[in-house]
Amino acid sequence: MNDTLDEAAALDIGALAAGLAQEHPADIVERLNAEPIDTASAVLSALPLERAAEVFDEPGLERAEELIEAQPAERAAALFRAMSDDRAADIFRHLDEPVRERLFAELDLETKAAVARLLAYPENTAGSIMTTEFVSVPSTWTVGETLDYVRKVEKTRETIYAIYVLDPKTEILVKPVSLRRLIAGAPQDPVLSVAPHRRPIAVPPSADREDVATLISKYDLLAVPVVDKRGHVLGIVTVDDIIDAMIEETTEDVQKFGGVEALDAPYMEIGFPRMIYKRAGWLCALFLGEMLTASAMQHFESELEKAVVLTLFIPLIMSSGGNSGSQATSLIIRAVALQEVRLRDWWRVALRELPPGVTLGAILGVIGIMRIALWQNLGIFDYGEHWVLVAMTVGAALVGIVTFGSLAGSMLPFILKRIGFDPASASAPFVATLVDVTGLVIYFSIALIFLRGTLL
Amino acid sequence: MNDTLDEAAALDIGALAAGLAQEHPADIVERLNAEPIDTASAVLSALPLERAAEVFDEPGLERAEELIEAQPAERAAALFRAMSDDRAADIFRHLDEPVRERLFAELDLETKAAVARLLAYPENTAGSIMTTEFVSVPSTWTVGETLDYVRKVEKTRETIYAIYVLDPKTEILVKPVSLRRLIAGAPQDPVLSVAPHRRPIAVPPSADREDVATLISKYDLLAVPVVDKRGHVLGIVTVDDIIDAMIEETTEDVQKFGGVEALDAPYMEIGFPRMIYKRAGWLCALFLGEMLTASAMQHFESELEKAVVLTLFIPLIMSSGGNSGSQATSLIIRAVALQEVRLRDWWRVALRELPPGVTLGAILGVIGIMRIALWQNLGIFDYGEHWVLVAMTVGAALVGIVTFGSLAGSMLPFILKRIGFDPASASAPFVATLVDVTGLVIYFSIALIFLRGTLL
Repeated sequence: MNDTLDEAAALDIGALAAGLAQEHPADIVERLNAEPIDTASAVLSALPLERAAEVFDEPGLERAEELIEAQPAERAAALFRAMSDDRAADIFRHLDEPVRERLFAELDLETKAAVARLLAYPENTAGSIMTTEFVSVPSTWTVGETLDYVRKVEKTRETIYAIYVLDPKTEILVKPVSLRRLIAGAPQDPVLSVAPHRRPIAVPPSADREDVATLISKYDLLAVPVVDKRGHVLGIVTVDDIIDAMIEETTEDVQKFGGVEALDAPYMEIGFPRMIYKRAGWLCALFLGEMLTASAMQHFESELEKAVVLTLFIPLIMSSGGNSGSQATSLIIRAVALQEVRLRDWWRVALRELPPGVTLGAILGVIGIMRIALWQNLGIFDYGEHWVLVAMTVGAALVGIVTFGSLAGSMLPFILKRIGFDPASASAPFVATLVDVTGLVIYFSIALIFLRGTLL
Repeated sequence: MNDTLDEAAALDIGALAAGLAQEHPADIVERLNAEPIDTASAVLSALPLERAAEVFDEPGLERAEELIEAQPAERAAALFRAMSDDRAADIFRHLDEPVRERLFAELDLETKAAVARLLAYPENTAGSIMTTEFVSVPSTWTVGETLDYVRKVEKTRETIYAIYVLDPKTEILVKPVSLRRLIAGAPQDPVLSVAPHRRPIAVPPSADREDVATLISKYDLLAVPVVDKRGHVLGIVTVDDIIDAMIEETTEDVQKFGGVEALDAPYMEIGFPRMIYKRAGWLCALFLGEMLTASAMQHFESELEKAVVLTLFIPLIMSSGGNSGSQATSLIIRAVALQEVRLRDWWRVALRELPPGVTLGAILGVIGIMRIALWQNLGIFDYGEHWVLVAMTVGAALVGIVTFGSLAGSMLPFILKRIGFDPASASAPFVATLVDVTGLVIYFSIALIFLRGTLL
């Protein structure tokens, strides 16, 4: 009975694998991501090695570590050999011991060396996402020789659209040559005759992947060579690695701005403990910071008791400060990321934020005053005999708090950057918390000025 | 005297232009962006036409519209002819009348037709960012014939790395062929012999550029063909157009999440009125929404007067709801953008958010209770004889409000999407405002339960 079931299951897997074998690897990945891990693993075993390696080559494949672990050791080693080095290193980076060590021992020498070299670079650097499967030729070759060589090695290289011409003795990078200029060139000409006149663009392995993305986008490149200090090409970062990296960075930026530590897996797959871990840290830190509002309120307790009417506007006024701060922060975080402003420009930004801050505060202040006057005169609510003074207090506090919010929000990314943190850690909740405490002090100070002798 | 000055200036411009002529266009752009508009314009006039067109081809060039306007009409027309069609259309899109009409009249017929065709598509669609300068060949050709043709047209095409094979009669797209497979093929074989077996990937001109980016990233493409309903290739979207689009989208996403309308120029260049316009709308809308907090507080005025101690924790409790909401929103906005969750998954997300919401609320609740107990027992502040009940109220309110914040924050993007808005409009300030009003009601309702008969 069980045998029949197993057989039926095996037939299903076989049919599924046969059907998928003709699909684009990215589509196979999409299908496998939706299947339970056992089915996905069985399908991968049933696929021809080349196809399975192509599937593992897709960074979109979820649970890649578990899936490779489920393959027999020998096949796992063959898969690692067949997939690109940067992807193999990426999977190893996320494998846990002792599986990691066991699988590493199974690798052939060449793959082992390549993976070990890539693993030595910290995550999110050019070194960690580069591939070592690029085309390089000595500068003594002709266009024709280079093309012949490219044809021969095409199948084993991640990209052949950029070819790196090296000094034949020192192996130092002389120039990159694009395949399009190469096929347009005369076969008997030296390969350097089709190279651009400009000095080659290259990055060190320690370069941040965001900076590599900026270079690729600025110069419209298909790949950037990663070179050591002497100018030897260690590998290349290709445009599709960079696109994947950019999507990840955008997700991280939005999550960080929301006050969450960046998730390391899709939202629907994060387990409960990990979700708490990623959110509780910031939430508690902000809560502790926000406790200062309770202290500030305690400080003004006697004023509060005398003028309960003031408490009615506390949430309204505080949130406006937080909102204007959040606006300013989001603008500056992106301006810093796009290198439109630099650290030394902080005072220019502060000067730029001042006029909008005051203007926006004045707009809200006028609306606030009108609201109080309207409610009072329509008889909706009675703010007491000194309602005009209360309205003035609210209006003036809004100007002060919105201006402070804009300034604090725009300066926070600079301050974080200056003291060595990621400016993108300046989240909306962070700014709001910062502005809340000061906002209360501003509000009560203005109230003391306007209302001393009447309400206070 | 003035003549000598002018001559000196002319010499300077000449020297600057000569120096820049050897640089990469992207570097020339960087330099020109930093110069006053007159200098930049003079340098562009002094550069050879081909170089100047390359500079205009860079999407990073700021003030491109003013710069082209400053060129003599004939040179402007020549520049438009020399630059890529999609970039020319992009500049036209941002030109104001009557300059737009005047320059358009100067264009040669071919450029005119291409630009008019591209301008017909709405901004941010595949049609509006595609280029019409691609390589296509009939399916009757051999690999060798195709390569010869590619060599001949190389200089006039934006990319030659993807070649589109068309039906010789209907001109409908049959297959794309990559240059790398083409140069590896045998010259006498038919061109279709090196085509992939899979059906071609293509998009309609109305496709959103974000969806095109997803396709390019998913299938690691260098270009995607844009086809009409019958399958004719109208143009192609290349990977570098998509990278530029992705950087723009990230900026928009972060700015929107901060509660600002997306800026259409770099932060440091936005004028004062435009800056107010981009920020005041949301700020006022949020302020009006937040006014409901004043109404809610007015409703509980008698409770406030009896128990001023309750007001001390209002900012603390409300901000915690806003923070947890902002966290949940940022997670869901990205999950929706990456298509990890779809509209119909809303209830699965709600179920997923419930346990972390309650847990995070409980964590903050315990910290809050400890804070009150500590301050009371250390004698830092006296919360009155019923301080235990006050602490319980604060703790319970935190559980309720943080849970509500997580749920509201995670559902807001779905609700916006459902009623036809961009889910990314669910900004952190928007969520905070939404949670603030409900948060107050939750807090006072819990207070009524815990404190009725004692304080209230």
